[in-house]
Amino acid sequence: WWNPILMDPCCVHVNSRLQQQLCMHISLLFIFLFMFSKKNIFIQVTASPVTDCLHPLHRKFTRLPHLAGTEQNLRYAEQIRKEWLEFGLDSVEMVPYDVLLSYPNKSQPNYISIVDQLGSEVFNTSLAEPVPAGYEDVSNIVPPYSAFSAKGQPEGDLVYVNYGRTEDFFQLEREMGINVTGKIVIVRYGKIFRGNKVKNAMLAGAKGIIMFSDPADYWAAGVQPYPDGWNLPGGGAQRGNVLNLNGAGDPLTPGYPAKEYTYRFSLEDAVGLPKIPVHPIGFHDAIHLLKNMGGPIPPNNWKGALNVSYKIGPGFTDDFRSQKVRMNIHTNNQLTRIYNVIGRIRGALEPDRYVILGGHRDAWVFGGIDPMSGAAVVHETVRSAGRLLSKGWRPRRTLIFASWDAEEFGLQGSTEWAEDNAKLLQERAVAYINADSAIEGMYTLRVDCTPSLHTLVYDITKQVSRPSPEEGEEGVSLYDSWHKRDNWTNDRDAPRINKLGSGSDFEAYFIRLGIAAGRARYTKNKITERYSSYPVYHSVYETFEIVERFYDPSFKRLRAVAQVRGGLIFQLADSLLLPLDVNQYADSLRKYAKSIAQLAQRHPEQMKMYEVSFDSLFSAVENFTIAARDFHERLQTLNREDPLQVRVMNDQLMYLERAFIDPLGLPGRPFYRHVIFAPSSHNKYAGESFPGIYDALFDIENSADPEKAWEEVKRQISIAAFTVHSTAMTLTPPA
Amino acid sequence: WWNPILMDPCCVHVNSRLQQQLCMHISLLFIFLFMFSKKNIFIQVTASPVTDCLHPLHRKFTRLPHLAGTEQNLRYAEQIRKEWLEFGLDSVEMVPYDVLLSYPNKSQPNYISIVDQLGSEVFNTSLAEPVPAGYEDVSNIVPPYSAFSAKGQPEGDLVYVNYGRTEDFFQLEREMGINVTGKIVIVRYGKIFRGNKVKNAMLAGAKGIIMFSDPADYWAAGVQPYPDGWNLPGGGAQRGNVLNLNGAGDPLTPGYPAKEYTYRFSLEDAVGLPKIPVHPIGFHDAIHLLKNMGGPIPPNNWKGALNVSYKIGPGFTDDFRSQKVRMNIHTNNQLTRIYNVIGRIRGALEPDRYVILGGHRDAWVFGGIDPMSGAAVVHETVRSAGRLLSKGWRPRRTLIFASWDAEEFGLQGSTEWAEDNAKLLQERAVAYINADSAIEGMYTLRVDCTPSLHTLVYDITKQVSRPSPEEGEEGVSLYDSWHKRDNWTNDRDAPRINKLGSGSDFEAYFIRLGIAAGRARYTKNKITERYSSYPVYHSVYETFEIVERFYDPSFKRLRAVAQVRGGLIFQLADSLLLPLDVNQYADSLRKYAKSIAQLAQRHPEQMKMYEVSFDSLFSAVENFTIAARDFHERLQTLNREDPLQVRVMNDQLMYLERAFIDPLGLPGRPFYRHVIFAPSSHNKYAGESFPGIYDALFDIENSADPEKAWEEVKRQISIAAFTVHSTAMTLTPPA
Repeated sequence: WWNPILMDPCCVHVNSRLQQQLCMHISLLFIFLFMFSKKNIFIQVTASPVTDCLHPLHRKFTRLPHLAGTEQNLRYAEQIRKEWLEFGLDSVEMVPYDVLLSYPNKSQPNYISIVDQLGSEVFNTSLAEPVPAGYEDVSNIVPPYSAFSAKGQPEGDLVYVNYGRTEDFFQLEREMGINVTGKIVIVRYGKIFRGNKVKNAMLAGAKGIIMFSDPADYWAAGVQPYPDGWNLPGGGAQRGNVLNLNGAGDPLTPGYPAKEYTYRFSLEDAVGLPKIPVHPIGFHDAIHLLKNMGGPIPPNNWKGALNVSYKIGPGFTDDFRSQKVRMNIHTNNQLTRIYNVIGRIRGALEPDRYVILGGHRDAWVFGGIDPMSGAAVVHETVRSAGRLLSKGWRPRRTLIFASWDAEEFGLQGSTEWAEDNAKLLQERAVAYINADSAIEGMYTLRVDCTPSLHTLVYDITKQVSRPSPEEGEEGVSLYDSWHKRDNWTNDRDAPRINKLGSGSDFEAYFIRLGIAAGRARYTKNKITERYSSYPVYHSVYETFEIVERFYDPSFKRLRAVAQVRGGLIFQLADSLLLPLDVNQYADSLRKYAKSIAQLAQRHPEQMKMYEVSFDSLFSAVENFTIAARDFHERLQTLNREDPLQVRVMNDQLMYLERAFIDPLGLPGRPFYRHVIFAPSSHNKYAGESFPGIYDALFDIENSADPEKAWEEVKRQISIAAFTVHSTAMTLTPPA
Repeated sequence: WWNPILMDPCCVHVNSRLQQQLCMHISLLFIFLFMFSKKNIFIQVTASPVTDCLHPLHRKFTRLPHLAGTEQNLRYAEQIRKEWLEFGLDSVEMVPYDVLLSYPNKSQPNYISIVDQLGSEVFNTSLAEPVPAGYEDVSNIVPPYSAFSAKGQPEGDLVYVNYGRTEDFFQLEREMGINVTGKIVIVRYGKIFRGNKVKNAMLAGAKGIIMFSDPADYWAAGVQPYPDGWNLPGGGAQRGNVLNLNGAGDPLTPGYPAKEYTYRFSLEDAVGLPKIPVHPIGFHDAIHLLKNMGGPIPPNNWKGALNVSYKIGPGFTDDFRSQKVRMNIHTNNQLTRIYNVIGRIRGALEPDRYVILGGHRDAWVFGGIDPMSGAAVVHETVRSAGRLLSKGWRPRRTLIFASWDAEEFGLQGSTEWAEDNAKLLQERAVAYINADSAIEGMYTLRVDCTPSLHTLVYDITKQVSRPSPEEGEEGVSLYDSWHKRDNWTNDRDAPRINKLGSGSDFEAYFIRLGIAAGRARYTKNKITERYSSYPVYHSVYETFEIVERFYDPSFKRLRAVAQVRGGLIFQLADSLLLPLDVNQYADSLRKYAKSIAQLAQRHPEQMKMYEVSFDSLFSAVENFTIAARDFHERLQTLNREDPLQVRVMNDQLMYLERAFIDPLGLPGRPFYRHVIFAPSSHNKYAGESFPGIYDALFDIENSADPEKAWEEVKRQISIAAFTVHSTAMTLTPPA
């Protein structure tokens, strides 16, 4: 055991002298903590890369647009591969797949028009965002578009449907009595994943959908638009894919990696492609379109900052206006080669146990925040690990580092690699830590992870010896700062940790394969800052400068995130006993079970009539709780000198998350197989607990066949109870 | 290490003095073989229970009918549990499930009539089989019936369709031009699983199906009917379930164990139940019905021993005869509690690695052959293991012994337990050895197993120091006897080992979960004995006496089977390195790939037109071959003193079979998930290699949409290539 604080000049690869000067103190901070307690002796290793190379690194990889499938993104991949090898990884490989991507047609731009009675286009939306200063000469900036939009030029009346959520369409149809069949809908961005908005519009019968960024959702109070502040300019718009993949990865090869020999579905049979044209616009353009809508007066809470109102009163017909809206969408689907970069450090004692740190590299434009604030963290972690290797260290387990491609097109790079390696991963993967954007705000830490990682996250944030990144908190640990700023209290008296939803590359690893997973980033104040995501999200204004000038001028926040992500993977890879907390999973299961039972209890008469009971689920959770407690007690008496005994219990810990996988998948979502967690069917970004039961209960009061609907609720309760119960069995002594 | 030949009076539990005297030399024969070669030092342990207790044991459990779900079968379960505990197992538990079984209605017997123009029944089939001598006072003998038959009294013309195979119906419809819609079909037993006959009849539109045992298929030449010989008497008939479960287990709870809280489908939604009445008859009854058939003259090879011929010439109408056939079927489906008995010996070093020996206990009547000749072997193996335990031995890995219930009703006991324990088994099971009937003939050994077990089977049969069970072969090993009698030669110059099909309890373990599996029994001479199965199969004549008097008077054949089954589980549980041979799997894959490619090559023009190529599959097999060879080379240099290094490579061996599982399952058969092996879609008993491709190619020349059909062939080749390739990856160094 040794406890070095390595002082090491790292910046041989950075470009300018100025940037080199920024690399003032590069350190790999290793904290070896011997935590003794009467019950338990843990030897925990926290390896936290703490480096100011993050700043120049970030600069280096945000100079040029590097959309998935482009030459520039391949160049960055090659550069990363080269540098990871130089850092000292045992192996680094480029792993290509040929997947379906989607690009605007360069010779026929996408836009939306208002057309008059004669069919003339009297207003057209802008073809591009105004380019930020300093980037005027950059080529290959893709204009705002909705990736995988259907082609087409639908023309019709425009109907506003708030955020385009399921409940918004319900309100429109059921309360306002408006049918959007054959119409074009316009919704504001925010609240839910845009793909869900598109799906809702399709289900409602719309023939096109326009999405705009309302200042109510993309402006922070008292902040100037970029470049004077970090709000979204009126000419900015949000790119993004509008797929409903439900975890399938490449739409043409669901379930299998998109290799050269792989069979591909036709476009008609592809998974998740919208059948209608879709397009995103900024609010400068949106104002013009919103003036031309029909329908009854919208509810006040639908109005947004643009003060949206329908032009005429209740009830409207196809010809109530002389002006209509026409979408002009020429986006092409295209089979495209993408490249993941996969680096490895072979484990010294258990090479067949994998701890993975992965984040995407592809960006809509420069990727100043998304993803390069995260990719820089991965890069620095690899450098730190290489440095340690050169000093003679080697982790107990294998570390895998991944730079994913085509995340922005539906998590494709990470999902194809998961499919390619599923057989290895399901037997060998200990944990997957995600490294997408490291910042989405300037307030405090945000962690989403599986319950068994909660305790490790708290331990690591307590152990981070650097102070909180926030001014005035120099003597405060990251944990204490986080705890103070997070105004959420529960019986544990600890800062909030959220369920994992989706929308980033952990999805296939956690939801499909059942690998313990987590993510950490710096976030905004959820209470006071009510805008969605961060204002410039997926716009051309996501630059290096917006981070350097506003989000993290000292790069201390990025560093804090690097310490958490790095701490997680180093501890998971190097601890003798896996630092996974089964009791915490029991607590979470109890909470989720109570919550879903309460949801059902909103229908007490039906519960009685159809004999619906949650007893089996509560009983399974009780079994799990006892099994978890007993397991941790047995851990105390484990002979740590016996490698097989240690392996047996570590395997029980590793396979715990795997046991929550149902190979049959959730109804209609074969690649969402985790019985406890899935992305919400109504918002991919959000995590739903007991999703099978939740979806069966959803809107059940309006079911056409209540008996069948409640039978499905009962079936889902049975599946959940079985899954929890049989997962509990994996924690009991193995024979 | 010690090498005892234990002489031990075992028969404290047998009933008569006579039987005790039969227990002359009870021995647990342990052969510790140190096999040295230049490349390889293997320490192999063969623990072979060799005991003449098999005889009294067999007698004890065949006195009374013990159909699944009956009181008597529960009593036997309790007795087995008690004795296994006395033998010294660490634990033995009764594991109940509540599943759908099917019984005749006691107050309304099933039979088939010939009815005249007035509707009078002028002939009725018999209601029961004549009971064999000595069993006249036994109650609870269930009459011959087709379990899970639909109820009903369909009446109509009778059409003979040979064995009721897919090709027989094709011939009837396409060449003979007969449509059976609305008719009752009669087929002879044999060649394929009876459930497939029923499915074919339903697909062809028949409104009922009768199955009979033709002497051509159930008589051995020169053999008298029982009790003077072992042929089937004319009044005997074959019971059996007629489900098409495709691995689902309990029809009401597919995918999940049938526990008290488990959600159950309605009967309408149940898996695999036939929608038409089905009934089995003997040939005495069959003759009468066959006289009343319509249709053209059947082909010569359809005639069987009853010289079946249609009454009238080509073309027939609904009213060609005055007499019709009426089925009277009142069989009830019934939710019934069944009991598995599960015993365990905890592994000393790797308690979380399971080697399973399982066979069913339930019988249609006495179970003289099926299954008690096998259950006696399991019981003796448990006794031997207990004896060893008492001497201080404990296997490296955990041994699990199972007495399954309700195998005869669709492998339900074993499948429900597999579902219940799927999460444990997929992480921990090393191998499953099946112990159904130990004999189906008197000629030589028959082994069906996964390719990776071939070498172990050969080694064990060579090492069995007892002579061949056959007279005049006293100095010959079982292997040599088997090799001599099996007149099959291949490039390995070894006796034939077959692919696993289905029809017994290994199914869920091998085909659904991907656990290496095998079965061994004594069989007939396949060349000279052309009858199906064995003549008295599933009749009341399967008694203790038929074994004692004809099949195995000295019980030496049973003992030989016990040595093979026992040798397999003891070696798998106790060897330092798992005795699985990956190279053998490579050889088999190459053979199967060639064979399926040849099948496709029957359509050279279509292969060209639709650009169908097997290159990717051959390339994957080549990868696999190289990976297998390299793996075995690395095994030579493994440091056997390092428990983690040994575990890592053993895990690669254990998970090899698992890697062939595709979680998406085969098309339309979600519980058949093994990409290399599945029960044939046309005969559950037979194993098909590359079943996805095979089924896609089946009858493709008659496809209504050839392009779509060939696209499916290409998709299946792609899946097979991916599966083989990614399984090869599991054999490479883990990092």
